Amino acid sequence: MIKVGIVGGTGYTGVELLRLLARHPNVAVEAITSRSEAGMAVSELYPNLRGHYDDLAFSEPDADRLARCDAVFFATPHGVAHALAGELLDKGTRVIDLSADFRLRDTEEWAHWYGQPHGAPQLLDDAIYGLPEVNREQIRQARLIAVPGCYPTAVQLGLLPLLEAGVIDADRIIADCKSGVTGAGRGAKVPSLLAEASESMKAYGASGHRHLPEIRQGLADAAKGPVGLTFVPHLTPMIRGIHATLYGRLTTDPGDLQALFERRFASEPFVDVMPAGSHPETRSVKGANLCRLAVHRPGDGDTVVVLSVIDNLVKGASGQAVHNLNLMFDLDELAGLDAPAIMP
Amino acid sequence: MIKVGIVGGTGYTGVELLRLLARHPNVAVEAITSRSEAGMAVSELYPNLRGHYDDLAFSEPDADRLARCDAVFFATPHGVAHALAGELLDKGTRVIDLSADFRLRDTEEWAHWYGQPHGAPQLLDDAIYGLPEVNREQIRQARLIAVPGCYPTAVQLGLLPLLEAGVIDADRIIADCKSGVTGAGRGAKVPSLLAEASESMKAYGASGHRHLPEIRQGLADAAKGPVGLTFVPHLTPMIRGIHATLYGRLTTDPGDLQALFERRFASEPFVDVMPAGSHPETRSVKGANLCRLAVHRPGDGDTVVVLSVIDNLVKGASGQAVHNLNLMFDLDELAGLDAPAIMP
Amino acid sequence: MIKVGIVGGTGYTGVELLRLLARHPNVAVEAITSRSEAGMAVSELYPNLRGHYDDLAFSEPDADRLARCDAVFFATPHGVAHALAGELLDKGTRVIDLSADFRLRDTEEWAHWYGQPHGAPQLLDDAIYGLPEVNREQIRQARLIAVPGCYPTAVQLGLLPLLEAGVIDADRIIADCKSGVTGAGRGAKVPSLLAEASESMKAYGASGHRHLPEIRQGLADAAKGPVGLTFVPHLTPMIRGIHATLYGRLTTDPGDLQALFERRFASEPFVDVMPAGSHPETRSVKGANLCRLAVHRPGDGDTVVVLSVIDNLVKGASGQAVHNLNLMFDLDELAGLDAPAIMP
Amino acid sequence: MIKVGIVGGTGYTGVELLRLLARHPNVAVEAITSRSEAGMAVSELYPNLRGHYDDLAFSEPDADRLARCDAVFFATPHGVAHALAGELLDKGTRVIDLSADFRLRDTEEWAHWYGQPHGAPQLLDDAIYGLPEVNREQIRQARLIAVPGCYPTAVQLGLLPLLEAGVIDADRIIADCKSGVTGAGRGAKVPSLLAEASESMKAYGASGHRHLPEIRQGLADAAKGPVGLTFVPHLTPMIRGIHATLYGRLTTDPGDLQALFERRFASEPFVDVMPAGSHPETRSVKGANLCRLAVHRPGDGDTVVVLSVIDNLVKGASGQAVHNLNLMFDLDELAGLDAPAIMP
Repeated sequence: MIKVGIVGGTGYTGVELLRLLARHPNVAVEAITSRSEAGMAVSELYPNLRGHYDDLAFSEPDADRLARCDAVFFATPHGVAHALAGELLDKGTRVIDLSADFRLRDTEEWAHWYGQPHGAPQLLDDAIYGLPEVNREQIRQARLIAVPGCYPTAVQLGLLPLLEAGVIDADRIIADCKSGVTGAGRGAKVPSLLAEASESMKAYGASGHRHLPEIRQGLADAAKGPVGLTFVPHLTPMIRGIHATLYGRLTTDPGDLQALFERRFASEPFVDVMPAGSHPETRSVKGANLCRLAVHRPGDGDTVVVLSVIDNLVKGASGQAVHNLNLMFDLDELAGLDAPAIMP
Repeated sequence: MIKVGIVGGTGYTGVELLRLLARHPNVAVEAITSRSEAGMAVSELYPNLRGHYDDLAFSEPDADRLARCDAVFFATPHGVAHALAGELLDKGTRVIDLSADFRLRDTEEWAHWYGQPHGAPQLLDDAIYGLPEVNREQIRQARLIAVPGCYPTAVQLGLLPLLEAGVIDADRIIADCKSGVTGAGRGAKVPSLLAEASESMKAYGASGHRHLPEIRQGLADAAKGPVGLTFVPHLTPMIRGIHATLYGRLTTDPGDLQALFERRFASEPFVDVMPAGSHPETRSVKGANLCRLAVHRPGDGDTVVVLSVIDNLVKGASGQAVHNLNLMFDLDELAGLDAPAIMP
Repeated sequence: MIKVGIVGGTGYTGVELLRLLARHPNVAVEAITSRSEAGMAVSELYPNLRGHYDDLAFSEPDADRLARCDAVFFATPHGVAHALAGELLDKGTRVIDLSADFRLRDTEEWAHWYGQPHGAPQLLDDAIYGLPEVNREQIRQARLIAVPGCYPTAVQLGLLPLLEAGVIDADRIIADCKSGVTGAGRGAKVPSLLAEASESMKAYGASGHRHLPEIRQGLADAAKGPVGLTFVPHLTPMIRGIHATLYGRLTTDPGDLQALFERRFASEPFVDVMPAGSHPETRSVKGANLCRLAVHRPGDGDTVVVLSVIDNLVKGASGQAVHNLNLMFDLDELAGLDAPAIMP
Repeated sequence: MIKVGIVGGTGYTGVELLRLLARHPNVAVEAITSRSEAGMAVSELYPNLRGHYDDLAFSEPDADRLARCDAVFFATPHGVAHALAGELLDKGTRVIDLSADFRLRDTEEWAHWYGQPHGAPQLLDDAIYGLPEVNREQIRQARLIAVPGCYPTAVQLGLLPLLEAGVIDADRIIADCKSGVTGAGRGAKVPSLLAEASESMKAYGASGHRHLPEIRQGLADAAKGPVGLTFVPHLTPMIRGIHATLYGRLTTDPGDLQALFERRFASEPFVDVMPAGSHPETRSVKGANLCRLAVHRPGDGDTVVVLSVIDNLVKGASGQAVHNLNLMFDLDELAGLDAPAIMP
């Protein structure tokens, strides 16, 4: 069994890791840390886990204990992995970071968006961006993974085929994204209350959002050059799910767009290109490590519309983290990730 | 008192007319028709109306009875107003049609989208498109009003200032719209069930939607020339509300966009330009005849983003219909429409 | 115009008072206080009010300024009205307290449930329990009103006819109540997050809840003797609404239960006894100052089941407070409270 | 592998069977029937299953084909299993019926509640009521299982310890139950629309519901005598989940209620007695085959309150059906049923 630890396990990505790992045939959770809840049984905070992990309680973060794990997940706010990852790596423990700490290669950009200096620039050379559909081979060899953000996963997967094929204007991409409220985390904030967020829809961060530079970096890699991206996220009255609606302008005859997408993801176990004309629903991936895509070309004009849905907590966070783990430890890619989505 | 009738009152726009008119100081509802529910008391179908309209029951449509009204609202599926409006107009009753029957000036386009020939082309010259922010003076004189659709209202109001000022590329407009489920009406359809539509988000009609030609027609009027529009509607898990996120490419220095919007709607009682940097929420207009707008220019680049929210049943349907009535009968524009939105 | 002030206006009962008073023909809001938001425009916190109260901002609580009002509403946590009401009453300003401060006649019981001594026992003789269906005449003369709690309103109205008629065993009453999340207020608490509270149902306070003694006191008055009550509240995934399901054991032939209820509330403008066999929905009173009731006797046995629904923010709080104001100032009882519920 | 068929697979219990069986190590789904959708791929109707069952399509019901299965699930409206079960049993195929066809032992009562004569009285002697916590040994030997209804499962599990111990008055039991909308099935009915059922709460069937006789029968078995039960179901604005709040009057000193419950279910893998003072949430069992219980005795009085939650589609239907299958074929009871609930 591969021994893993989880740092910062009280948030939604933490409990989702536990849910997925409960059924993973090759993984044992050895430690889960939380400063605020140290001493509390995991199943007390998350009663859905009663009957699983009955001996597991949150503990104070302890680098020595964590270093006895084969791998450690960080499900923490930004900055924490900066401080702790180096020590673990030095002791031979691999790190899978679900936070934003190692996603941006440009430390100045990181400092700009997160309002503090980058805390571990010396580790950036080791950090692999954990999007398996792009970096599978590097992930297999990696010791430090930056798991992509939720919006960046949905947007990149939807645009990769078009940018790699060079058929859209990379300078004028629009990503209109809708997220469930778990994207805002488990913090007690008034705008996240059911009384405030349900029965309503709103945009936020229309003038700039922290996921923008991450998406831009990934798209630029695919386009082999800078991209112009307008990204507007919206808060949607549901618990889980991201729906990205992506707009690009065709600059050349793309041929059969459906075939382009199907070819690109033909061997990807966690990307589902739906039949032509489909409109994927976020609920069709609820709880599952999947991105479902559909590509449209309204009126056979020069605008291509891609619809991309994921569960923000699974393919957008914890499931993708487990996928990375499976690759790093040469396990079946589907291990722990083979359950169908729950619907209705 | 102005005597009004409602044809097809069992749907959501019908009950919403009754809710608004219950407090209108100058209007009396004389008749409400429904073939399916003839004989049933209005308050039996809509218990929120118990204590109001206690003597009002649905009746079979009867042109003579309706013609005794000063005005008749059609809250019907398309085709019904085609068949009945002419007779009422001939008898001197004014018609306010909430359906799509008289919205498109091009009868062939109408026939294309609605799958049947236009039933009353001879009335089109009389039909005024009931968007008061554009056609206020004509509405005052009109005898036949085509109340705009919900999406078209939200999209046009958000784009009018930009197109009238000629500052965006009219050929590349994107309208990404999110609607609550009442937009699909009160019909019993599986995709509209709570078990199917809640906790999920999906696009629909990405390759073409009936509101597209209506929006295009209105925008072309504002732009004084044809427009290129990509319109993607989405079903959102909430009862009421439309959030339109509108993207345009600036082709010239627009100056102060905030001022442009504020000027355009300075004297409009039902359009609220929010302060710069705002993100309007659909719940801030729930139950109210209002469009709230915010304009953004991310990164001071050449893309302008407009956020436009309405209650699809009020400013997107029944409230706008009452506003038209107020104008046609020279009443206070706010009569019956002065209640604040309900929040939370 | 009657000049009113609101103390503690940032919570949900505060904004609901503003929403209702915006359309009240005889009332002007002169002041609204909030320590935390002093200086902020009301419409900044509550954008649904933009266009109403545009000159009104939250101010620091100031007894002199409040005392210039004819009446002051307290929409505050418990304890605040204790501290401030006396001074206002001394200066001739009438007080309508929406908190629990003056609801219980027994100060020891108050201290037990609220964990602090009662702060103004000397005012209790003046305090009238503001349930108009019971105390209408006293309310007319009152200078200090204790507006009933939300659960107590729904439960008492549903049980009054049975207890007053003496037809059920007062010793074995069960009130199973379901409330929307606004009942928990606008505080930022994890269990009230959409991500936690939606798609779920749970009981709380099954072993004891602060509304229990208030309900017991009111029922005892009706029964003219002590009552035995089991009260279990539940958190329901909706914004507004309380559904009380009340169970009593018939101890005598009650005759026609439907007639008993209809007679009891025949002249009550805000209680609607629905037809026999009905099942009132909370949405049928959303936004309206109404309690809708239905009475059932399953299998003609000896158990009577009463279904009672209110909007917890209206008939369960702010609407009832306005009703009290109308009575105290000899206004039309329906002033400001005549709008139908919003549905769907 | 055990070969199974599913009759009537288009409803919610059908898709839930497929979801659970997708991960069952010992079961292969050989056939799934639907008259209305014959020919359609399963994953077309239920896109969450894309990637699973890719060769499985709905077929016309065909007794010969179904009889080649080891077991057949009926996920059909009442009456269907009456017509078809006998033939399958004769051919040696075991039947697990999720409908109400074989739940009531009294055929006249069945006819009364379902409005038609019982169609297969000769099979009743073979039918075992599939509540493993009561009938585990008989289920192991059974060839025909009547899977309990959702409400009956939640109510019986919560009351069994009390009735078996004889500590409550069996004549005055109250079951106040709250169900998510999937309890009403996938039929397109107006009251089940999101626009109608969300943001609202209502009781239904207060004067009588089809699950009443089933619950009464099960409770009477536990009490070894007739019981008096008042059962009021409520429609709750959520997709999945039942919350049963159960009230009984203690007739004798019950001793330690918590211990009583823990003892009763000590060896039950799918019943979780939560710690004293708990309030189980329906979301803590979402997607999982679990009943979580908590027992309260408010004010140490003579009323006992039991809180019982299940996922109506899992422990209340398809999961319990799989549990029965596991028992009948001597498999691990947890096979296919070991995944934690999904939360948030």
